[in-house]
Amino acid sequence: MARNAHPEVTEQRILDAARELFMEQGYEKTSIQDIVDRLGDLSKGAIYHHFKSKQAILDRLGDDDARRIGDQSRTVFERNDLNGLQKIRELFRLSASDADHRNINRVAMPLLDDPTYFTDNMRFWSSQLPNSFRPLIDEGVRDGSIPTEYPQEAAEMLALLTNYWLLPHFYPATAAQLRHRVQCLATMLDAIGVPVFDDELIDMTANLYAAFDDRHPS
Amino acid sequence: MARNAHPEVTEQRILDAARELFMEQGYEKTSIQDIVDRLGDLSKGAIYHHFKSKQAILDRLGDDDARRIGDQSRTVFERNDLNGLQKIRELFRLSASDADHRNINRVAMPLLDDPTYFTDNMRFWSSQLPNSFRPLIDEGVRDGSIPTEYPQEAAEMLALLTNYWLLPHFYPATAAQLRHRVQCLATMLDAIGVPVFDDELIDMTANLYAAFDDRHPS
Repeated sequence: MARNAHPEVTEQRILDAARELFMEQGYEKTSIQDIVDRLGDLSKGAIYHHFKSKQAILDRLGDDDARRIGDQSRTVFERNDLNGLQKIRELFRLSASDADHRNINRVAMPLLDDPTYFTDNMRFWSSQLPNSFRPLIDEGVRDGSIPTEYPQEAAEMLALLTNYWLLPHFYPATAAQLRHRVQCLATMLDAIGVPVFDDELIDMTANLYAAFDDRHPS
Repeated sequence: MARNAHPEVTEQRILDAARELFMEQGYEKTSIQDIVDRLGDLSKGAIYHHFKSKQAILDRLGDDDARRIGDQSRTVFERNDLNGLQKIRELFRLSASDADHRNINRVAMPLLDDPTYFTDNMRFWSSQLPNSFRPLIDEGVRDGSIPTEYPQEAAEMLALLTNYWLLPHFYPATAAQLRHRVQCLATMLDAIGVPVFDDELIDMTANLYAAFDDRHPS
């Protein structure tokens, strides 16, 4: 295929090969040369023409995943057959049952050891992500499914605790300890009138985070 | 006084002057020259002889504060007249009512914008600080004052939420919003059998964190 006749096709091939390699052998152990070898018909230079670094490839995979999950989320937001509580549950269910999402997050886990990347993530979880949960919590307060006096605090806890505290990368835990942690989160959220984590979602979430355990690979 | 005849006296004078200046005009606006001017009888070189940088001075102030609070904490650990729950409350009361501790933490707040310093702090709060709370929680489980099934989770929540989530530096809030946030924390901890935050401690804690608000100085 002529170089750059269809740059988006070439980019997608690079992304697909990189995702496979990251999943097979990890992000840190994968080199641009590995991607060249996997593709067979592209030079290193051709890859650098599309992505300036290995991290740029992973960032793009992450952006694509975020966009896809974002699209799914908007569909949930607009459903008329669910109340506020059910919509939040559906968001967590979608994210927990999505294998591609799980894989890209697992692959990106080592990046969280970089202070700048970690700090950027923490800022996103504290200042932006709560704003995604808040409208659904407010909807639940209006429709009676989320009887909370703490809508903002609940949005902040959902964002912080599910993205940071539940991660074995930061708080190492066995699968049993993770399940116990999710049950603890469920109990705390129940107490402030936000009963998002029912038994089904506790199971799904505990399994999801056990799969994120890059320190004790399952 | 002869240079270095009593280096610890000179160091303490530098630390005292720096603490005063940091509190008066902020860490970022204070220069080594300001410390020279305040002391009157020491050169810049003399200060650099004792501390390699302004941050080294602040680090030492923080270390000294941590040692002092640590000593107070050990005294609380060893008291025979308090149960486990009362000991944890006493630790929070001590830290909330200690003006020097509050001031040094307030002064150090801008450093938390540095990704490396922030990441080091988050790691301390996730991996080491819970180990300080855990023995007191276990003591409370044994003496019946902390009827929790979640001792480890409670230790992690006490460390993470009181040091990170309650800080208006990370989660901007008015004084009223901060009080509501502390009430939310109290409700969540009560639900997992760790009723540390009674009304008195909710008040003290909300006031403490309002004083830490370097974004909306009171």
